[in-house]
Amino acid sequence: MSDLKTRILGLVADDLAAIEAELELHLNPHLDLVRQVAGHILFSGGKRLRPLLLVLAARMCDYQGSYDKTFSISLEYLHAATLLHDDLIDEADLRRGRPVAHSIWGNATTILVGDFLLARALTIAAGTGKIEIIKVVSGITENMSQGEIHQLSRKGDLALNETEYREVIWRKTAVLFEGACRSAALLAGASEDRIEALSRYGANLGIAFQMADDLIDYISDTRDLGKKAGADLREGKLTLPVIAALEMANRQDRNRMAAIIANPQFTENEFNELKALLEQYGGLAYTREKAQEHVQLAKDALAHFKPSETTDILYDLADFTLQRRA
Amino acid sequence: MSDLKTRILGLVADDLAAIEAELELHLNPHLDLVRQVAGHILFSGGKRLRPLLLVLAARMCDYQGSYDKTFSISLEYLHAATLLHDDLIDEADLRRGRPVAHSIWGNATTILVGDFLLARALTIAAGTGKIEIIKVVSGITENMSQGEIHQLSRKGDLALNETEYREVIWRKTAVLFEGACRSAALLAGASEDRIEALSRYGANLGIAFQMADDLIDYISDTRDLGKKAGADLREGKLTLPVIAALEMANRQDRNRMAAIIANPQFTENEFNELKALLEQYGGLAYTREKAQEHVQLAKDALAHFKPSETTDILYDLADFTLQRRA
Repeated sequence: MSDLKTRILGLVADDLAAIEAELELHLNPHLDLVRQVAGHILFSGGKRLRPLLLVLAARMCDYQGSYDKTFSISLEYLHAATLLHDDLIDEADLRRGRPVAHSIWGNATTILVGDFLLARALTIAAGTGKIEIIKVVSGITENMSQGEIHQLSRKGDLALNETEYREVIWRKTAVLFEGACRSAALLAGASEDRIEALSRYGANLGIAFQMADDLIDYISDTRDLGKKAGADLREGKLTLPVIAALEMANRQDRNRMAAIIANPQFTENEFNELKALLEQYGGLAYTREKAQEHVQLAKDALAHFKPSETTDILYDLADFTLQRRA
Repeated sequence: MSDLKTRILGLVADDLAAIEAELELHLNPHLDLVRQVAGHILFSGGKRLRPLLLVLAARMCDYQGSYDKTFSISLEYLHAATLLHDDLIDEADLRRGRPVAHSIWGNATTILVGDFLLARALTIAAGTGKIEIIKVVSGITENMSQGEIHQLSRKGDLALNETEYREVIWRKTAVLFEGACRSAALLAGASEDRIEALSRYGANLGIAFQMADDLIDYISDTRDLGKKAGADLREGKLTLPVIAALEMANRQDRNRMAAIIANPQFTENEFNELKALLEQYGGLAYTREKAQEHVQLAKDALAHFKPSETTDILYDLADFTLQRRA
């Protein structure tokens, strides 16, 4: 574990424990089967990054109540719901080194437990009576589903450019990070300035996080990932490392990359050849650089807040985005 | 078209037109693909029973605002979302005589558009700021997904009894009818008595509706249904006509029914043989009788309201439940 990760985990240990307890407490399904499937995705070593973000953002605004925990688990349920559906859609085998839910319980149950978790997320949010934040939560869900559909509709399309890629990752990933921070600021009754600043922090963190995620698929091995390396490409997902390299490659290499991408059954040798081309044409460096820019934008957004332990943790979280290997 | 249906449609024509317009207006997706898929299920000749119920229940409570239309389409989106997911789960081919969405756009897009519609339903509800009703809407979604999971987990299980069947249909169907009526009464600021009375109307109407639906699968032909007759049984769904007949059959006939049910590829002759046994052992009559009891309970719930055109329509709707052929 990196020093940074150890430090962050030490500083937020109490928050994580509280989040964990609430996650167990509020699941409350009528059926044991729902508890099993939901539990499989909810309690499988997730980083709790989204709920943590909400709790920390609330602290940045001196929030004194307990609804931050409530909303934070609402977002984690929402996140879990999308993971269940996404793994099914992506025909993934593994997540965090474990078989995905649909490989154990089948597609039908997995779809429905995803629906249950989506609904549970909204019920928990509604239970607080905070209408502005309920709107944020339902808006996140709308955006995430549309981001995924957008990505899907561009599957294997070599014409996908960086602008459209950014649109996709904003919807499918960053709105949830942004929403976590915005909810916290709204909850605390923060000033418009602070609401915007924290939202900007969240949105940029989310974009950096997704870019780093897309990078990891090309720089980590299967063991680190807890899933098969090259999965994005096998699923026809063209991400920034590939988009940037395609943009910069000469015609011959571009054609070679296109040929590898076109066949989802590419061999390990072909994948390595592609990775070498991504390296050669700077696709990996470019992605790292762009992610770093968003990390910086996230940090800049916090400039209005006076330094504190919480600010430090949020800075660390931003840096951590680029240190992940899985 | 039956006289009853013609009369009801005449009396609610303006309401249906208003609902139709709002359904178009609020869909508002970012992607044209989402509009296509959502439109395929939303604008394919649905009866608009749930939104209509909400609008009529609001009128029973002299509601003067316009949020009844808003919530009514929220429920129709929710309903459409569950149809998309259910058709996929049931591996259905046709709905209302048209190919199901997943056969046109694939499973992945269909799952995600379902998620979008679920979220849209909640966003529209949240937009009104009426927290009590938002809770009803999200609660409905939780119950429906769990009702479907419950049904799924009992697939092909001959031990399913009437009590458990009732639990399933209450969750998967009746909570939405009940929620439509309850939302309307809450919206109108009705007295506790009236909220309860209208909820009871809705719940009983929903149960009667589902029982009638389960009956239709054994008494209508494929052309009337707009989908293959015997679909429930092919999907391993044991419904009241079968549950009741199994209960009453002698061992030999019970075994014969079990053998037919056990093989989802049963022939038309076998299906006809099963239907004859359902008839012989009174499974169809029993289901009709139970549905009729719930129609009566629904009507009884309206006793507190003074007679009006709206009350008459709600009575007619209850009767119509048992006249449907598709």
